[in-house]
Amino acid sequence: MKYEKKAPLIWNGRSLELLDQRLLPHQQVVVNVTTVKECYDAIRDMVVRGAPLIGFTGIWGAVLSCINNGNFEEDIAYLKEARPTAINLVYELDRCLGIFRTNGPEGLKEKIIDFANEQMAKLGRDNQKMADLALEFMDKNYHSENYTFLTICNTGYLACGPMGTALGVISNANSKNRLAKAYATETRPYLQGSRLTAYEMMTEEIPFEIIVEGAFSYLLKTRKIDAIFAGADRIARNGDTANKIGTSTLAIVAKEYGVPFFIVAPTSSFDLQIAHGDQIPIELRDEKEITHISGQAIAPIGARALNPSFDVTSSKHITGIFCENGVITDFDPENVRRIVQGE
Amino acid sequence: MKYEKKAPLIWNGRSLELLDQRLLPHQQVVVNVTTVKECYDAIRDMVVRGAPLIGFTGIWGAVLSCINNGNFEEDIAYLKEARPTAINLVYELDRCLGIFRTNGPEGLKEKIIDFANEQMAKLGRDNQKMADLALEFMDKNYHSENYTFLTICNTGYLACGPMGTALGVISNANSKNRLAKAYATETRPYLQGSRLTAYEMMTEEIPFEIIVEGAFSYLLKTRKIDAIFAGADRIARNGDTANKIGTSTLAIVAKEYGVPFFIVAPTSSFDLQIAHGDQIPIELRDEKEITHISGQAIAPIGARALNPSFDVTSSKHITGIFCENGVITDFDPENVRRIVQGE
Repeated sequence: MKYEKKAPLIWNGRSLELLDQRLLPHQQVVVNVTTVKECYDAIRDMVVRGAPLIGFTGIWGAVLSCINNGNFEEDIAYLKEARPTAINLVYELDRCLGIFRTNGPEGLKEKIIDFANEQMAKLGRDNQKMADLALEFMDKNYHSENYTFLTICNTGYLACGPMGTALGVISNANSKNRLAKAYATETRPYLQGSRLTAYEMMTEEIPFEIIVEGAFSYLLKTRKIDAIFAGADRIARNGDTANKIGTSTLAIVAKEYGVPFFIVAPTSSFDLQIAHGDQIPIELRDEKEITHISGQAIAPIGARALNPSFDVTSSKHITGIFCENGVITDFDPENVRRIVQGE
Repeated sequence: MKYEKKAPLIWNGRSLELLDQRLLPHQQVVVNVTTVKECYDAIRDMVVRGAPLIGFTGIWGAVLSCINNGNFEEDIAYLKEARPTAINLVYELDRCLGIFRTNGPEGLKEKIIDFANEQMAKLGRDNQKMADLALEFMDKNYHSENYTFLTICNTGYLACGPMGTALGVISNANSKNRLAKAYATETRPYLQGSRLTAYEMMTEEIPFEIIVEGAFSYLLKTRKIDAIFAGADRIARNGDTANKIGTSTLAIVAKEYGVPFFIVAPTSSFDLQIAHGDQIPIELRDEKEITHISGQAIAPIGARALNPSFDVTSSKHITGIFCENGVITDFDPENVRRIVQGE
């Protein structure tokens, strides 16, 4: 099977073409979205995933509202409900509403299209900047001609649209012929690593191997891993970082073996209202994600499971955080705030 | 579905009844073994698993050779080949051969039956002793009325016959009403935790939850875990311990959070010829165990995976090792040797 790289979201001038991420890696099916309702369904049913991509899909939903002569304010309110917890969706749709309220319906479609393209281009530039910063930092502090990197979960173009965050660093190094190899953890229970990261690496012809989370110690002890890059769901003022379950486990093992551990995340992932990671709530998800795989029971019927979706990595286990404004290695809260706010 | 506790191996006076572990946890099927050939097949095809249980199955195969008037020496040589890497099988069969060579064919069947019963009873006593030692040690050093324990992989009665090692500690505490709860890791990639440990805990009515390996940090940080118990595949003279992949990762995280981490293993698991863990070879297994689950691809076709089956836990991350001769907390090689050899 050939895994051809397809953009997860394309605006073709009339409608939105979304790569159906539910069917990856085994089928590469594009869903054509022409109405606000179809856009809502695509977000709700997880055709698209990843906070930035959900946000962009929302903006194109606003464009579809203009094309279909919908009630713009009602459509925006409706789209916001598609995934209540994805903050990017609300953020982007509120910006669309702002454009409408400031400028009125005149030329609204063109203005929202410009806004959508701008937002996607900005994320692409920011992600490229983070990836370049990370490679520069590696070259300065841990120079090697060809790096071996490890990543966890999925943080690539499927989640972000134009480019990825942590996986963007790996793609970037690979495109500059500076990558020897990448390792991706399978990311139990939902297998985003095996299903999505591995798919992206196949489409980008990145040499890689999948490992299970239990193999962290084996891998870091027996293979030369130059650095680990992970994404972030939320970052507190002291640098404590919530990310996919397994990230904190990995960071602790990395510290034990002296392997540098980095977070790659845009400034929008920082929550400066939160002093430290213990204040970040952790979602406990359906036990069936652990007791079943692809609908098939792997554990005894009735067995219970504890399924935290995220964990919090203490900043004491983090070597640095790359954002589009630079790298944070000093986690003094005032320093973090200064860099995040671009002062 | 009711999960009723069934012994993994019963000698019914004429034949061997083996619980087919390949079908667990969803089906509890007993295979009746009446010939040496069937015994060989049961071992080779993994109807039974776990080094001690494979050894016992071999001894009963020797009994079947007597009953079926086979060529005893030929049958022993044949049975030894069923699983070349399971050292217990060769060890037990060589003992049977010794009985034959010392005493001749006269009353051989009865002598081998006595030997089989003795070996199984001895393991049961030794495992009980280790479990009692562990509970005493906990009571002395970390007293609690009701303990919460974590274990990894499968080390219970299914692997050992009469009783388990690390899981034996948990069963023992539960039977004495001293267990609040147990956590079992699912043990990717082969899911021994979800499939077998969870099954055993269901049959023994042990309150438990399954977690994924990535959740080690979350679990040890957010739940009160009194101690972790793991088994061993081989233990070096300095206490470094090879065990299922994930064990070393877990031990490193346990050290970070100050949770005591114990190995429970009979003296036969010690290899005093080996100075430290780096000399223990680690088997790399089929990549498909990671890229596929129950025959179904979860990763892109052609994706590579690194699948080490074991890892080595440094003794600096181990609080103590329980064997039938006592607990080892000082990993000076001479001290380890002294306790293992019962001096």
